[in-house]
Amino acid sequence: MLNYRPSVNEPAATVRTSQGDYRVIVSRGAIESIGPEMREVGIGGRAFLIADYSMFPLLVRRAHEALERAGYETHALILELGESAKNIETATKVYEWLAEQRAERTDCLVGMGGGVTTDLVGFVAATWLRGVPVVQVPTSLAAMVDASIGGKTAVNLPIGKNLVGAFKQPRLVVHDIDFLDTLPRRELAAGWAEAIKQALILDDDLLDTFEAHAEDLAALSGELVELVIRRSVEIKAKIVSADEFETGNDRVLLNYGHTIGHAIEAVTEYGTYLHGEAVSIGMMVAAGISRRAGLISEELVDRQRALLERFELPVSLRGVDADTLIEATASDKKSRGGKIRWVLLRGPGRSTTSREIPDRVVRAALHDVLVGD
Amino acid sequence: MLNYRPSVNEPAATVRTSQGDYRVIVSRGAIESIGPEMREVGIGGRAFLIADYSMFPLLVRRAHEALERAGYETHALILELGESAKNIETATKVYEWLAEQRAERTDCLVGMGGGVTTDLVGFVAATWLRGVPVVQVPTSLAAMVDASIGGKTAVNLPIGKNLVGAFKQPRLVVHDIDFLDTLPRRELAAGWAEAIKQALILDDDLLDTFEAHAEDLAALSGELVELVIRRSVEIKAKIVSADEFETGNDRVLLNYGHTIGHAIEAVTEYGTYLHGEAVSIGMMVAAGISRRAGLISEELVDRQRALLERFELPVSLRGVDADTLIEATASDKKSRGGKIRWVLLRGPGRSTTSREIPDRVVRAALHDVLVGD
Repeated sequence: MLNYRPSVNEPAATVRTSQGDYRVIVSRGAIESIGPEMREVGIGGRAFLIADYSMFPLLVRRAHEALERAGYETHALILELGESAKNIETATKVYEWLAEQRAERTDCLVGMGGGVTTDLVGFVAATWLRGVPVVQVPTSLAAMVDASIGGKTAVNLPIGKNLVGAFKQPRLVVHDIDFLDTLPRRELAAGWAEAIKQALILDDDLLDTFEAHAEDLAALSGELVELVIRRSVEIKAKIVSADEFETGNDRVLLNYGHTIGHAIEAVTEYGTYLHGEAVSIGMMVAAGISRRAGLISEELVDRQRALLERFELPVSLRGVDADTLIEATASDKKSRGGKIRWVLLRGPGRSTTSREIPDRVVRAALHDVLVGD
Repeated sequence: MLNYRPSVNEPAATVRTSQGDYRVIVSRGAIESIGPEMREVGIGGRAFLIADYSMFPLLVRRAHEALERAGYETHALILELGESAKNIETATKVYEWLAEQRAERTDCLVGMGGGVTTDLVGFVAATWLRGVPVVQVPTSLAAMVDASIGGKTAVNLPIGKNLVGAFKQPRLVVHDIDFLDTLPRRELAAGWAEAIKQALILDDDLLDTFEAHAEDLAALSGELVELVIRRSVEIKAKIVSADEFETGNDRVLLNYGHTIGHAIEAVTEYGTYLHGEAVSIGMMVAAGISRRAGLISEELVDRQRALLERFELPVSLRGVDADTLIEATASDKKSRGGKIRWVLLRGPGRSTTSREIPDRVVRAALHDVLVGD
């Protein structure tokens, strides 16, 4: 279990990439120091703050003022950035705004919102004038522990999610834990699903911590929240540093639960489940495959299910049949030559991948999770 | 003057970049060996050939067959790729085609056409699934000596050219000199303008060669054409290798004539001058500034004018006033903090930059070139 005490003045992690190293700052009230942190890493020019409409105006204003206090001429654009707005049309709106403001190569974009915002603003930063600096300020738990770190940016096409994008590493990532207090409980749980995923695939210690304090964490109560987020950030940073472009065998592990998770989102047209909820169900299928492939015992499958349920995350799926889901997995970006690379558990905090899972094993694991199939 | 004899089996140049090194193959009939060359650099998967509609179908078929001979499953998309089609909508059409074909990360795009095509296909390759390999087959002279090498890719917004893009280095560039035989003379001359620019800023020797053989080169007659293109490719490759992201002082030199050239294109709404023609006029303004700044003599300005005229390139501009052009330069991507970085000559084959050119000097140089202003 986690028992160290980080200093809030230390970054949670440093991510090392071909586009440069960057720090992830994690603390309550971190947004207040965004300006000096940006100066520290040498960002000059103006700041173009792009924030999700659903953010409380007070938080956007705090960020705006914090940037101006450090001497940044700051311009803000507020957009509705739900999943259905994560597309080329919204990116074009941002481009047009930047063009009107005559934003230059030395200016900086600051993305403030959930994963849709950090994905979209990161993509715009990757492509505006062939690339300008970006600072990410994730405000959802899912974006903090996952989307904002590692430089994966993207927008959706009508035909599929995240098909258009770029690897664009931020210059700085700022996690203000205070922002989480404004999140609906369901969205928080979906964020925890990604952190639980990291524990399951890579960190037995973190898994124990989740099991010992599930209800406190789900309620954001106590000091442990920051500690767990820091650990989660460390895990993500380590993986990204080792395998920046997902060409090796490290980064792909983060897709545990995502092959079926993405398929569930596609089949339900992104209207039923939050991403983390779909991943929760997907993890149950992946654990089932792992057990049937002889990699783990039934006990670990049950342990995973019990933990997800304590976070009120879904662990089964009603009204969708196996064929539809399997068909939907075929467009998975990680497939190569048509064969899906499954991420599987091989113990608590240990994982592996396989391209050699027979269709009947996938179907059997799906059968365990699909209700009324 | 150029007098070496390269072997056609040797690449003209190798470009060294952070995204990997790549070769530029230059010869008559080079397209026939595109397949083995792609195998040589380790490209697997399928080939997605994206070609400009204005290409002769025979040439596209030759490329298609050459790819298939090397065992690449090849799919072709023919698009109208004029400057007005170099936009996000056309990129989206290509994305949708790739999605329908289920193009994967290990598959390769092959762009075949002029600079618009290589820019657009490069941008799509930079952003499809966060980046897939791309091979460039430029078919215009301008694209051969300039656009296809160096990884600058982009699309236009209604509000400005090349505002959205990425640095995306190709895996291989194939120049088939035979393709040039199909080009209109005016388009050829516009291509030579970029090569003459390279000679003026960096290569006294190449400048002498242009002066000794202007009419032969303009008519594509003789062996020297290939030699000059090779030298031009070498110059471009050397600059790009030294300053991949245009953050140093090398690559910006290639913008000689482009500040006013871009302004002329914008003011005339891209309907009057080919890019190289606008650059030709822009070079006359830049040479005038260089002379007025005391960097070069009147003689070099005259020498430049005489050479451009032998290629039937425009050296003056009618019906546009200085204020309009100066206003149009303000959105130049290379400006920083509002100040334009002028690329200037300081001798034949030698150049420099300056941000400190007084407005009156620019106006005086414009006055020399504007007719009826």
